[in-house]
Amino acid sequence: MKALFAAFSVCVLTLPAAAQDHRAIEFPDVEPYVTLVGDFHMHTIFSDGSVWPNIRVQEAVRDALDAIAVTEHLEYQPYRADIPHPDRNRSHQVATQSARNEDLIVINGSEITRELPPGHLNAIFLEDANALVAAPGEEALDPMDVFREARRQDAFVFWNHPNWVAQSPSGVAVLTDMHHTLIGEGLLSGIEIANEQTYSDEAFQIALDHNLTLLGTSDIHGLVDWEFDVPGGGHRPVTLVFAAERSADGIKEALVARRTVVWFRNTLIGRPEHLMPLLEASIQVAAAEYWSNSSVLRVSLANTSDASLILRNMSAYTLHESANLVTLPPHGVIDINVKTLESPAMITLSFEVLSALIAPGTHPSIRLEVYSTQ
Amino acid sequence: MKALFAAFSVCVLTLPAAAQDHRAIEFPDVEPYVTLVGDFHMHTIFSDGSVWPNIRVQEAVRDALDAIAVTEHLEYQPYRADIPHPDRNRSHQVATQSARNEDLIVINGSEITRELPPGHLNAIFLEDANALVAAPGEEALDPMDVFREARRQDAFVFWNHPNWVAQSPSGVAVLTDMHHTLIGEGLLSGIEIANEQTYSDEAFQIALDHNLTLLGTSDIHGLVDWEFDVPGGGHRPVTLVFAAERSADGIKEALVARRTVVWFRNTLIGRPEHLMPLLEASIQVAAAEYWSNSSVLRVSLANTSDASLILRNMSAYTLHESANLVTLPPHGVIDINVKTLESPAMITLSFEVLSALIAPGTHPSIRLEVYSTQ
Amino acid sequence: MKALFAAFSVCVLTLPAAAQDHRAIEFPDVEPYVTLVGDFHMHTIFSDGSVWPNIRVQEAVRDALDAIAVTEHLEYQPYRADIPHPDRNRSHQVATQSARNEDLIVINGSEITRELPPGHLNAIFLEDANALVAAPGEEALDPMDVFREARRQDAFVFWNHPNWVAQSPSGVAVLTDMHHTLIGEGLLSGIEIANEQTYSDEAFQIALDHNLTLLGTSDIHGLVDWEFDVPGGGHRPVTLVFAAERSADGIKEALVARRTVVWFRNTLIGRPEHLMPLLEASIQVAAAEYWSNSSVLRVSLANTSDASLILRNMSAYTLHESANLVTLPPHGVIDINVKTLESPAMITLSFEVLSALIAPGTHPSIRLEVYSTQ
Amino acid sequence: MKALFAAFSVCVLTLPAAAQDHRAIEFPDVEPYVTLVGDFHMHTIFSDGSVWPNIRVQEAVRDALDAIAVTEHLEYQPYRADIPHPDRNRSHQVATQSARNEDLIVINGSEITRELPPGHLNAIFLEDANALVAAPGEEALDPMDVFREARRQDAFVFWNHPNWVAQSPSGVAVLTDMHHTLIGEGLLSGIEIANEQTYSDEAFQIALDHNLTLLGTSDIHGLVDWEFDVPGGGHRPVTLVFAAERSADGIKEALVARRTVVWFRNTLIGRPEHLMPLLEASIQVAAAEYWSNSSVLRVSLANTSDASLILRNMSAYTLHESANLVTLPPHGVIDINVKTLESPAMITLSFEVLSALIAPGTHPSIRLEVYSTQ
Repeated sequence: MKALFAAFSVCVLTLPAAAQDHRAIEFPDVEPYVTLVGDFHMHTIFSDGSVWPNIRVQEAVRDALDAIAVTEHLEYQPYRADIPHPDRNRSHQVATQSARNEDLIVINGSEITRELPPGHLNAIFLEDANALVAAPGEEALDPMDVFREARRQDAFVFWNHPNWVAQSPSGVAVLTDMHHTLIGEGLLSGIEIANEQTYSDEAFQIALDHNLTLLGTSDIHGLVDWEFDVPGGGHRPVTLVFAAERSADGIKEALVARRTVVWFRNTLIGRPEHLMPLLEASIQVAAAEYWSNSSVLRVSLANTSDASLILRNMSAYTLHESANLVTLPPHGVIDINVKTLESPAMITLSFEVLSALIAPGTHPSIRLEVYSTQ
Repeated sequence: MKALFAAFSVCVLTLPAAAQDHRAIEFPDVEPYVTLVGDFHMHTIFSDGSVWPNIRVQEAVRDALDAIAVTEHLEYQPYRADIPHPDRNRSHQVATQSARNEDLIVINGSEITRELPPGHLNAIFLEDANALVAAPGEEALDPMDVFREARRQDAFVFWNHPNWVAQSPSGVAVLTDMHHTLIGEGLLSGIEIANEQTYSDEAFQIALDHNLTLLGTSDIHGLVDWEFDVPGGGHRPVTLVFAAERSADGIKEALVARRTVVWFRNTLIGRPEHLMPLLEASIQVAAAEYWSNSSVLRVSLANTSDASLILRNMSAYTLHESANLVTLPPHGVIDINVKTLESPAMITLSFEVLSALIAPGTHPSIRLEVYSTQ
Repeated sequence: MKALFAAFSVCVLTLPAAAQDHRAIEFPDVEPYVTLVGDFHMHTIFSDGSVWPNIRVQEAVRDALDAIAVTEHLEYQPYRADIPHPDRNRSHQVATQSARNEDLIVINGSEITRELPPGHLNAIFLEDANALVAAPGEEALDPMDVFREARRQDAFVFWNHPNWVAQSPSGVAVLTDMHHTLIGEGLLSGIEIANEQTYSDEAFQIALDHNLTLLGTSDIHGLVDWEFDVPGGGHRPVTLVFAAERSADGIKEALVARRTVVWFRNTLIGRPEHLMPLLEASIQVAAAEYWSNSSVLRVSLANTSDASLILRNMSAYTLHESANLVTLPPHGVIDINVKTLESPAMITLSFEVLSALIAPGTHPSIRLEVYSTQ
Repeated sequence: MKALFAAFSVCVLTLPAAAQDHRAIEFPDVEPYVTLVGDFHMHTIFSDGSVWPNIRVQEAVRDALDAIAVTEHLEYQPYRADIPHPDRNRSHQVATQSARNEDLIVINGSEITRELPPGHLNAIFLEDANALVAAPGEEALDPMDVFREARRQDAFVFWNHPNWVAQSPSGVAVLTDMHHTLIGEGLLSGIEIANEQTYSDEAFQIALDHNLTLLGTSDIHGLVDWEFDVPGGGHRPVTLVFAAERSADGIKEALVARRTVVWFRNTLIGRPEHLMPLLEASIQVAAAEYWSNSSVLRVSLANTSDASLILRNMSAYTLHESANLVTLPPHGVIDINVKTLESPAMITLSFEVLSALIAPGTHPSIRLEVYSTQ
């Protein structure tokens, strides 16, 4: 205990420096699962992105992602005059080759790119993307046929940026009849609640109402470092996946089972059954000692996650060195000092986690049982 | 070619950044008052502090304070063997002399330093501190007589760190009979709710219940830069005073009238009648334009204060690029994008200000009327 | 004078913040020329780079470059299976289109990519790159014919990375007979002395011996931000061009006339006739006043360039607050205090500029006449 | 999955960064000596400084100094009205008490404060400072008698700021007859070549000509953090002492034997016999491998000191990735790439160390034998 606590202390001291140098996105595992960090929506020059797939791989390696899917538009190929490659699996092949020496899972995926409805949807874990699009010169496939083909390939399909103002001028996500049908037939399983720079409360509510998997993606076309100000401390939106194993199969099983949390602009968004264990794994009581001659208990809280956790004190106790807001810095440790009045050996603290959401506008609350070590 | 023009651009562009680096504590005025920044509790080698008064003046100048009081312990003089000066106004005289070329108001004050009750209390705007303490070798004055003398001198008296664990082992501020008497006789007018590294919800409630002026002070004995990590972005606790004029008299009148807000660890704490106007003066709608072909309204919010303002969206509208928390950086501008649905010419936004308190555990809410300029 | 000095003071205060935020590469003009910042060697997915040309344009805009050339390999097209476009002007066309709303000069160029000799050479200001390479399936052109065609198009040709270990395992640049012939026939006019992460004293000497234009280029294939650690304060190698006008023609005339200075890892490298005026334009005496009752002269030196200038004092005078090294930060002002002994109204200071080179291993010296204003 | 491992990695990876942020002044030992960091000139409120001695102790602890002397003016006591303590050892007693729980050697010393000649001189390792000054009301002692008393107490005496413009308006240090006499009689053993913000070439030359110990001191009156911009990366001037043991006696023996190097504004200044071993201990060849298929040798150089070492390449070889200047950051490692031509198993590198001085205007050169490990 002593040694572990000391290790944390070192970390705290070095955190300001780390914040500048360190972009790896790291969250603790949640028993019995491993926590994998994925970004399942991005583009390269094989549709309308600005980079060769190797840059997407290198960005992912720098961000310490576990998995990516390079999801080119099937029906939108603005660079076709220069890049006429007819194989829609080509971007995935190049990305896979680029990642051959990296510890990164590359998943085959494509973006079905239609007018609303159905709008844009990603199908990932595809066997052959070509089967989802008409051959050049042929008539476009019926969208329902495309989704059935995706289903046939056992792909995982989610609706992209349902709040996109180009398709929904109000920015509000609304399910259409076609989406209801897709969901009803098991052809649509997930929805982006965070995409690039946007988040949608309405999409989150749709996911909860219709039992869809929550996704957050970068949808990056340019450079991750620029779009999300990585040197300044920003991060891309990612989907945290709680998987039985670190593999493509593990990710797919977890996505189907809806075991995800989205991390968008430092906010953790998920269903309580996934978000609460993540918060519990992220917040550790590192030490708890009473001040001498006082009933004030100094509690050291360690944050093992990459998120800055903003907590509002909801305990029966007030704090001695803070008002009711406490911020746990990423991979840092802070002390809070609790006025216990009676100096019990154990106290229960409770906090509303303001930087997390379990439903639109609703923050989760956590409880910590703290045993004094003195 | 671009260089000369750019040289000027550098200056302009970096001013906001410089404002962040800079330690000056700056809050906007609140009509019809000027907002003055004061720290009315600190020590030098004339009682148990570690510096000559000129350092307190220089710290205040670096922090851009408007006013300080150097409040030595009347009854606690650990360095007396080395510094036997009998005049209890001496520290104030030296500080005043040190500040003669500075734009800083130096107020004469002393800390009445007794066992609880009454504990430690500051009397500021004193004419002669010597009258509040027995001459060496004589019997200690009765505390009630001391407060009556302070009253006679028309001093302003406030209770220091009522949550101090050395006097209140629970860290909980509790009014004693003597305090009730002092308040009842008009001999005690204020209370520290923030002192050095501590804040007290209970002291805040006492202030509200008994109509006492709210104070936040550094109570600095060592160095402000070290104690409050100023190079790392920290700040000392201060009392914001809303005064009719920038003068000692102006401050005194405002303190008596209870027109203060406390700033402690980036939290603004005050009565609604003083805190709300400060928030309104601090948050400005700089621009508001609808996105083209969309009912999303981009609203630029400027923060003219030194506090980082953490807002929770309570509006009838959801946001397009944030979940419900928005942080306005000090002296910065951010855009929020509001999904208005109907594109009205005016909308009303409302936010809970999580980094402010109007009562223990109670955050204020602000409303902003936003008129689109397009 | 007063106003100008005040402007500088502001800059100084804001420099630390600027250093983090600001990547624009800015050097002062050198009468009668404008100082243009160019990078004439880079790659995109149209040969073996990793980005679409728009990223090269955006990197250049962020770096505030005046001019770029996107110089694809003519004979090396590893992505040809995916990007079979036969027109070797295509990358330039796309870059030009990407830059249509930017204040950036885009120059048509290509990299002639041969075994050594002649190795790799860039031809810029081409009319038609296709004329420099055999059609697919045809026999490669004789290199001399290629250079003659470049000459016919009035292109400017320079030798790339003559120190490249893949062609020169020692890393030492050596002129071959073919290079002598090219130079003799006026077919080769310039040489890279700095390329990506390397610099070559030997190439610099060759340039001086054979009257070649000095060039420094990024030769970027990946991302400028990553390769040169731009967020950490690094910069790409660039060629500063002293041009009669800010235009493609102006740049070409200046390159032909050899009016360039290379900036590589904060070192300025050039012929004395170009480097000395740049240093003189960069270093300004902003103020000079004697200390009261002393013969010590406080001289404020302003650096209007983007280079950190490391100066070694070679004056007849010693300094009061420095040993013999003084560093002028980019776009900053520092004071040096000169022990003049006799308090003359004018003194001459001389410095060796250690962060500049006028020949391999040879630093320039500058002289400053300083008139006291008091 | 990666998170737990990464948590430990963070600590490791950020230690070098932390070392930069950290203000501890650290230099390697030089066999057979330990390298101790001392500051033997500073003031508190017991003469004309602005702090109680405990602040001097805390500043020293934060700077990781090994030894300090609190050297009050004997003849200048501007705060005497407030601090009439007659014992001139009092400041030392208080400092010693403040340091009782710190690993800091506190040496008794005083500043003999006279008109020039002899000017101001520090006597350290005093037994009783009172013997060096006349009792109040008595006639001032003859300076020669003061120095003889210091000698009698076996004190170490050095001349302070001989370049002080208040005593030498030109800022030039000049030995007077009295100084010659003092040196001749063995009453004066050292000289400050760096004091607070100033450095003196002339003082350095006097030390070399007259065999005096070199000293650099802060002479701090205010706060070290402010005067030397410690948060911004600055450091106070210190004297590095090469001692046979870490003790007051060890320091005294080393000072008498002149085994010192001064560190002033990142410049190391000393006699070759002390400075060269320090540089050799500070610069380590951490690795050396030839590039594949090349005669370029990658040499990793580690800097174990707190000084940023600016090296000018004077080797028979040119470098592949730098011009002739190379900077070794404090506690950092950099690679240089040497064009060896013949790929020998061993090469000798030589560098002029521009950030070090062995005589006024003269930089030392170091030689490194590098054995390739491949």
